[in-house]
Amino acid sequence: MTGGRGRFITFEGGDGAGKTTQSRLLADHFAAQGRTVVHTREPGGTDFGVEVREIVLHSRSHIDPRAEALLYAADRAHHVATVVRPALERGDVVLQDRYFDSSVAYQGAGRVLDAGQIRDLSIWAVDGLLPDLTILLDLDPSAARARLDVARTRYDRLEAEAAEFHERVRAAFLDLAAAEPERFLVVDAALPVEEIARIVRERVDASA
Amino acid sequence: MTGGRGRFITFEGGDGAGKTTQSRLLADHFAAQGRTVVHTREPGGTDFGVEVREIVLHSRSHIDPRAEALLYAADRAHHVATVVRPALERGDVVLQDRYFDSSVAYQGAGRVLDAGQIRDLSIWAVDGLLPDLTILLDLDPSAARARLDVARTRYDRLEAEAAEFHERVRAAFLDLAAAEPERFLVVDAALPVEEIARIVRERVDASA
Repeated sequence: MTGGRGRFITFEGGDGAGKTTQSRLLADHFAAQGRTVVHTREPGGTDFGVEVREIVLHSRSHIDPRAEALLYAADRAHHVATVVRPALERGDVVLQDRYFDSSVAYQGAGRVLDAGQIRDLSIWAVDGLLPDLTILLDLDPSAARARLDVARTRYDRLEAEAAEFHERVRAAFLDLAAAEPERFLVVDAALPVEEIARIVRERVDASA
Repeated sequence: MTGGRGRFITFEGGDGAGKTTQSRLLADHFAAQGRTVVHTREPGGTDFGVEVREIVLHSRSHIDPRAEALLYAADRAHHVATVVRPALERGDVVLQDRYFDSSVAYQGAGRVLDAGQIRDLSIWAVDGLLPDLTILLDLDPSAARARLDVARTRYDRLEAEAAEFHERVRAAFLDLAAAEPERFLVVDAALPVEEIARIVRERVDASA
């Protein structure tokens, strides 16, 4: 941590792994310490992002994979420039659901595009801003699907992809974590919610 | 020209240089030869592009420069994948107002982003598709401004940029043409419309 700069912590993992719950619990933890917390997500963290998300998720026609990757990168660039960087410069804590690791895992490993190129694209989009810590909530896709069914969540296009796709995404996330063990904390998302929250808090407090 | 493939010809230059007029005249020339012509433009050549263009041009808030560049690249990726490549595979002639040279000239030379990176981004977006021929209609920006005034064109955000910016764009276009003399034909846009059309036709027919 350089002086005066905030902390940038991202949550990654498939849908249903508990990212929203855990980032909310961690936000409570920081708030209890008197820290200002900016809680945000990708895609859709800004009005600009909402418009971009609309194009991607609800387009009636097929979207070219490169076009889709570029739209996500555009959302990311705008979001980092207008929300994340200003907050970090104020010294706030930024907790974000999904960042470029999601793009690499979903677009690169799961689809037709090269994962390294997707990563380069994102890094360019955000002018090199890496998270201080990335929490990967790792869950077997069939368990994640069961959770979503219970919640009767309406599936969007990404969520409707086949189970095999989610297996590849999970493997891609684990590969990313293995490649950057300093940045990643991998937690078994099948653990009880409070147990996960405790593990996350310990790592966060240890690296403060 | 490889067998069965069409021709991809782009028109570049500042606003008011006559791109629309000249591409229309060249379309007539090809049509007279019995060729099928697809006449398109960037940004906005598809429904997807229209939506992207709306975000860029009419956004009330400031757009991060990288986000803007990525949106244009997304439009380009989708446009090339869904309009340009299918037409070329059918053997058609594709005449397009603006392509990645515009992005390099406007975003790179005129703004804060690196021109080489903008070019790399576009080339990735279109999976390497270069035009067979690029016609640069070169015009002194003050002459271009006078033409626009006469036509009482409503200025959009790009057109409202300062005259100095347009000077840098012109210089950037000329640099691009000098770097790839095989691909570019530079024509003085202050010449009479029919004279320009004749010069363009000669080059097009010579390289058929």
